[in-house]
Amino acid sequence: MSSSVPVVDIHTHIYPPSYMELLKSRDEIPYIRQFPPAKEHRLVILPAEDTPSTSRGRPIGSGYYDISERIAFMNTHSISTSIISLANPWLDWLPSTTALPTALSINTEINSLCAQHPTRLYFFGTLPLSAPPSSILESITHLKTLPYCRGIILGTSGLGSGLDDPALLPIFKELAANNFPIFLHPHYGLPTSVFGPRGNDYGHVLPLALGFPMETTIAVTRMILSSVFTSVPDLQVILAHSGGTLPFLAGRIESCILHDAHLKAEGKLSEGRKTIWEILKKNIWLDAVVYGDVGVRGAVGVSGADRVMFGTDAPFFPPLDEEEVGQQWLSVSMNKDAISSACGAGSEEEKAILGGNAIRLFGLDLDASG
Amino acid sequence: MSSSVPVVDIHTHIYPPSYMELLKSRDEIPYIRQFPPAKEHRLVILPAEDTPSTSRGRPIGSGYYDISERIAFMNTHSISTSIISLANPWLDWLPSTTALPTALSINTEINSLCAQHPTRLYFFGTLPLSAPPSSILESITHLKTLPYCRGIILGTSGLGSGLDDPALLPIFKELAANNFPIFLHPHYGLPTSVFGPRGNDYGHVLPLALGFPMETTIAVTRMILSSVFTSVPDLQVILAHSGGTLPFLAGRIESCILHDAHLKAEGKLSEGRKTIWEILKKNIWLDAVVYGDVGVRGAVGVSGADRVMFGTDAPFFPPLDEEEVGQQWLSVSMNKDAISSACGAGSEEEKAILGGNAIRLFGLDLDASG
Repeated sequence: MSSSVPVVDIHTHIYPPSYMELLKSRDEIPYIRQFPPAKEHRLVILPAEDTPSTSRGRPIGSGYYDISERIAFMNTHSISTSIISLANPWLDWLPSTTALPTALSINTEINSLCAQHPTRLYFFGTLPLSAPPSSILESITHLKTLPYCRGIILGTSGLGSGLDDPALLPIFKELAANNFPIFLHPHYGLPTSVFGPRGNDYGHVLPLALGFPMETTIAVTRMILSSVFTSVPDLQVILAHSGGTLPFLAGRIESCILHDAHLKAEGKLSEGRKTIWEILKKNIWLDAVVYGDVGVRGAVGVSGADRVMFGTDAPFFPPLDEEEVGQQWLSVSMNKDAISSACGAGSEEEKAILGGNAIRLFGLDLDASG
Repeated sequence: MSSSVPVVDIHTHIYPPSYMELLKSRDEIPYIRQFPPAKEHRLVILPAEDTPSTSRGRPIGSGYYDISERIAFMNTHSISTSIISLANPWLDWLPSTTALPTALSINTEINSLCAQHPTRLYFFGTLPLSAPPSSILESITHLKTLPYCRGIILGTSGLGSGLDDPALLPIFKELAANNFPIFLHPHYGLPTSVFGPRGNDYGHVLPLALGFPMETTIAVTRMILSSVFTSVPDLQVILAHSGGTLPFLAGRIESCILHDAHLKAEGKLSEGRKTIWEILKKNIWLDAVVYGDVGVRGAVGVSGADRVMFGTDAPFFPPLDEEEVGQQWLSVSMNKDAISSACGAGSEEEKAILGGNAIRLFGLDLDASG
C-alpha cells in the first residue's frame, strides 16, 4: 500500500465456499446452475434474470468465491482494505430451523478469511432473519466475538414485512448498543410488471439500475416514517448505492410529510420530529457507488463529505471484455473518477471518501499493511 | 408583474369545469365524491388513497377548477405566466369512442381559459390516447390551431404498454415536427405492495414522494433504452419533479448499460449510441419541483441551468392550515428557496430557471403583462 491515500472499499461481496455449495444444492432463486449447452456455472438471484435467454443469471467465476482473487483485485485497484459482506440474498431464504447454525458457521468462515489477510479484510456479518428473535440476538452476540466484524449487512425484507416492522426494534437497539452499523443493501427490486412488456429487451438494466436503488429508497423511507431513528437514536445505517435515490428525493419526502393531512391529524408533525435532513446527517452514511459526479455531489450534499465512503460493488459489474481481466475495472474507475470530479482530485474530501471516513467509522487498523 | 424577474410556472394543473363533471359522474378511480358524514367533495386519483380513512382522496375546492383563483395564486406568488395542464389522469381512462371528441372539447376549453388572461396563461394540450392512432394525430393537428398551446402533457402509459412502445413513434415524430415538447408526468405510481403492510400509516407520503418520481424515472429510462431519442432526435421531453430520480441515477443507468452482456451481444453498445449524458443535454428538460437545493443542483448538473424550469405543482400541496390561505404556500417557497440556494440569489442561473428558460423554450409573449 504505497499510496499515500488509504483506499477502503466498504461495498464488496463474497460468496464463501460453503455458501456456494448451498446455492448449488437449490433449484429455485437463489441458485447456481449450468444451463446446457453452456458449461459455465451461472448465478441467478433475481426473478427478472431467471428467464431463458443468453443472459439468464450471470457467469459465476472464481472472482465470486476465491478470496485470493479479491486480494488481487484490491492490489490492481490500490485498495488497502475491504469490508467484505455476504452477497444478496444472504440468508433470508433459509428455513427457520437451519438459519442460526448457518449464520454462525458462515460468519465464522468469513471472519477466518479476514484473519488470513490481516489489515486487508474486515467484514459485515449476516443475521439469521428467518430464525426466532432470540436466535437473531444470539447471532449478534456471536458476531461480537469475531474480531474482524464491523457491522452487519441487511436486506430490505427484515423479518418478512420490511424494516418499519416494530418487531425489529430490539434488534436495531442491540446493533446500536454494540456499535454495529447496518449496511442496508437491496435485493428484491421492484415487481417485474413495472418495467413493462419490453423489459427483457434491455438485459438486466432496468432491475439493476432502477429496481435496486428504488427498493433501498423505499426501505429507508419506511424506517424514517415509522420513527426508527427516534426509537433508536444511535442507530447508524450505511445505504448502498449512495442511498438509492434518497439524496435526490429527500426534499420531496420532507415536503410530502409536511403537507400530509393524515400525519398532521395523527400528531406526527410535532415540534420534536426529526427531519429527514437531521437523519441524513446523524444516522445515515452513504457509499459512493453512484457512477457519476452528480450523484456524489448529491450524497455529499445531504450527508456531508464525512459520511460518504468509497465502494466497488465487486465482484459485480466486471469488464465485459475478456482481455480487460487483470486491468482496472471500468465500474471502479467510473466511481473513482466521480469522487475526484465532485470533490477535486487530491482534496481532503476526496481522501475522506476514499478511505478516511471508513477508517474512522470502523476503527480500522491499517498500520501493518505497508 | 412589477418584478424584474419574470417567473413562469410550467408545472401547474387545472380541472376545467367539464372535466369536473366527468369525474363526478364516475364511481371508480378517477372520481370525485362526498364521503358522508363529510360534506366536502373529495378527489380520488390514486388507488393507494382510495381506502376508507380520514385521508381518502383529497379535498377538492375551487382552487382546482376556478381559473380566477389560479390567477390570484399567481399574483400571490409573483408568477407572471403559467403553462397550465390538465391534471392526471388526463383522458387515459376514456372509452375509445369518446376520447377524441372529449380531447378536442377540453383542449378548446382550456385554450379559452388562456384567452381570457392573455400573457398570463398558456397550456399543454392533452391527447386522446385511447382513440385510434389517426385520431391521436388529428388531435395534434387541432392543437396547432389553438394559439395558447405550447406542447402536450403525457402520462407514462402511452397507448397502454408504456412509452417504449414502437407504435408511439409516429406520434412522437408528429410532436417533434410541430415543436410541441412533451411534459411527461406520473400518475400510476408503483404497485401498492412495494410500500408494505404499514403504508397506510404514513398518509399519502410513500406513493406521492416515492411512487410518482420512480414511475417517471422508469418511463423515461424505457424511452432511452428503446432508442426513442435516436429515432426522433428532435423530440423534447420535459420531466416532472426534476426527472423523478433520473439526474441522480443517470450514472448508474449508464454504467448498467455499459456492463450489460445482453445489450453488447445485441450490438446496442456501438459507437453511435447516444449516451444518457447526451440525451439529458439535448432532449430532456427538467422542472425544478424538487423541494431541496441538492435536487436542483442535480438537475442543473445533468441538463444544465438552461434546461431547468420553475414549477409549483399547484393546486396540489396547499398549506395544511386554513389561516395560511392567501399567503405564500410552503410548497412554493420550498422550491423557490431551493433554486436560490443552489444557484445563488439574484444570479443569472436563478433568473433562467425562474422564467428565462421557459420564455425561450415556449416563445412566450409577456410584453403586455406589465
